[in-house]
Amino acid sequence: MREADVGIGALTLDGGESLPAVVQRVTMYGHRNRRTVFVPHALTGSSRVAEWWPGIVGDGAPFDPSEWCVIGINALGSCYGSTGPTSVRAFPRVTVRDIVRAQRRALDELGVDKIDVVIGGSLGGMQALQWAIDAPDRVGRAIVVGAHDHHSAMGIALNTVQRDALALDPVRGLRLARKIAMLTYKSAALLDARHGRNADRRGARRFDVEGYLEHQADLFERRMDAATYETLTLAMDSFDVRCHPEPGERSGRTRLTFAGISTDWLFRPSEVRAAVQRFAASGWNARYVELKSDHGHDAFLAESHRLAALIAPPASERSLQQRNVSGVA
Amino acid sequence: MREADVGIGALTLDGGESLPAVVQRVTMYGHRNRRTVFVPHALTGSSRVAEWWPGIVGDGAPFDPSEWCVIGINALGSCYGSTGPTSVRAFPRVTVRDIVRAQRRALDELGVDKIDVVIGGSLGGMQALQWAIDAPDRVGRAIVVGAHDHHSAMGIALNTVQRDALALDPVRGLRLARKIAMLTYKSAALLDARHGRNADRRGARRFDVEGYLEHQADLFERRMDAATYETLTLAMDSFDVRCHPEPGERSGRTRLTFAGISTDWLFRPSEVRAAVQRFAASGWNARYVELKSDHGHDAFLAESHRLAALIAPPASERSLQQRNVSGVA
Repeated sequence: MREADVGIGALTLDGGESLPAVVQRVTMYGHRNRRTVFVPHALTGSSRVAEWWPGIVGDGAPFDPSEWCVIGINALGSCYGSTGPTSVRAFPRVTVRDIVRAQRRALDELGVDKIDVVIGGSLGGMQALQWAIDAPDRVGRAIVVGAHDHHSAMGIALNTVQRDALALDPVRGLRLARKIAMLTYKSAALLDARHGRNADRRGARRFDVEGYLEHQADLFERRMDAATYETLTLAMDSFDVRCHPEPGERSGRTRLTFAGISTDWLFRPSEVRAAVQRFAASGWNARYVELKSDHGHDAFLAESHRLAALIAPPASERSLQQRNVSGVA
Repeated sequence: MREADVGIGALTLDGGESLPAVVQRVTMYGHRNRRTVFVPHALTGSSRVAEWWPGIVGDGAPFDPSEWCVIGINALGSCYGSTGPTSVRAFPRVTVRDIVRAQRRALDELGVDKIDVVIGGSLGGMQALQWAIDAPDRVGRAIVVGAHDHHSAMGIALNTVQRDALALDPVRGLRLARKIAMLTYKSAALLDARHGRNADRRGARRFDVEGYLEHQADLFERRMDAATYETLTLAMDSFDVRCHPEPGERSGRTRLTFAGISTDWLFRPSEVRAAVQRFAASGWNARYVELKSDHGHDAFLAESHRLAALIAPPASERSLQQRNVSGVA
């Protein structure tokens, strides 16, 4: 693993503001002369993709660093090494497109021209799709997991109530926001199976599921701050690429795989399928796969070993991919 | 409409505490010599059932006051006239069984012995089922809408995060709790159809769905208080009648209808069906109907005219019901 803080200079944002001297924290696994996979992270992740997505990146995983050059970049606006509200006062709003623009500039600096695969889940999936739209000739394949082409009214509403919690108290509100978020990541059936109506396993006078939420809040309070959380949930809310480029010279080069999760109610499978249809109707090579899981949205992390089996490229594409690979090597 | 505050004296609660001089606010519509329907309310309702459930109680509705004597009672622990935390300091925890015990005592005082139908949605549905369990020889039929025989882990967890919000600030936290609750009452598809990613209809710099939530919070702040909300969500969390009486002399007299809502994720239809099976397996006359609706949990209110068509008693029961009626008249 190599880690570097890459300076990309000033960055003009979709909102019109300009950020001076932007830094991108980049983590790389595996040799540079291998096929390249870029893994943008979800709301609270980091550039160290092997730490939070071992079923996808790691020994025996689809993107094994002995066969792939794996690249992670901490998102613009996050607190894990890249420029964000913990390093810049009055940090402006950023969009998913801004986040991807900064990533492209960082990869330019590093001389990484082509990316064989970009893969991400949730906010990471939004970034993967934005990459395909903004740089279709640079990305061979985009795998969009537990996400689709816009953030829904329910998604916006759930982020709104979490930001309301932050506004009440930066620490206790952040804890509450995390608890709310955990409930959107998990399915009701999973909570029933794991916690049911059991009494707290540590003996407190509460239900076990309440203890679980407190524990998640404890972990989160140590590793996240309110300004970052606000910034990145606003970036999610801004996401809508339904007016993506019509097929033509630019579009249609990146092959798209959307992976819906059967029990995800934050990014409903029906909405993911509708997005696939929209992209396919516009001439994109887009296909849908579904991860059958009781976990809910979180299945892309919690059942990443099962996701791994789903995202293998279809046999018809493997020879194409090999050609791409040799072009990159 | 007649309204009365009925004193029921001291009440011993499931938790062991005793409340002195308990009052129950009772509202009645229609003449006493008609068939009797009792309508317990949901989390934030009141005894004035015709105001909040006009599709079920009112002119042309299944329980038309020209044909029925309709009775509503404000739940113990609520703030609409009955004894609760706004009238008693350090108000203790109450259970759904306590709420129903107080209602039984109020109806005793009023000389209402038999109830032909008890019908309620959500927390009201829990009370309807509790009535059938605690007084099966007093109730002809119980209609349990958008509820089943226990509060789930997800239900408890969602109430927990709402109580966490109250603990941050009694007013702003109550607003936040209502916003969270509204998201659990509505389906994602409904929010997409109504608000989508539209800009705020009043012109504020926010999404329309955010404006909707603010408006709901405004309405709620005027009519609810934090202590009541805490008390009644805790009562919901306490609810679990899966260990209901085995069939025998006491049980099986009340006929049970459970109405699930197709898009309800707070009280999932699969869980409602499982409850019906549990009751039927124990010898209860229990049947399941499903309200097909895009609204989510709230459909029992928002589409009450469609619910009305579902809850007509099966033809085989109508003659039985007539007999019950003459017994009561």
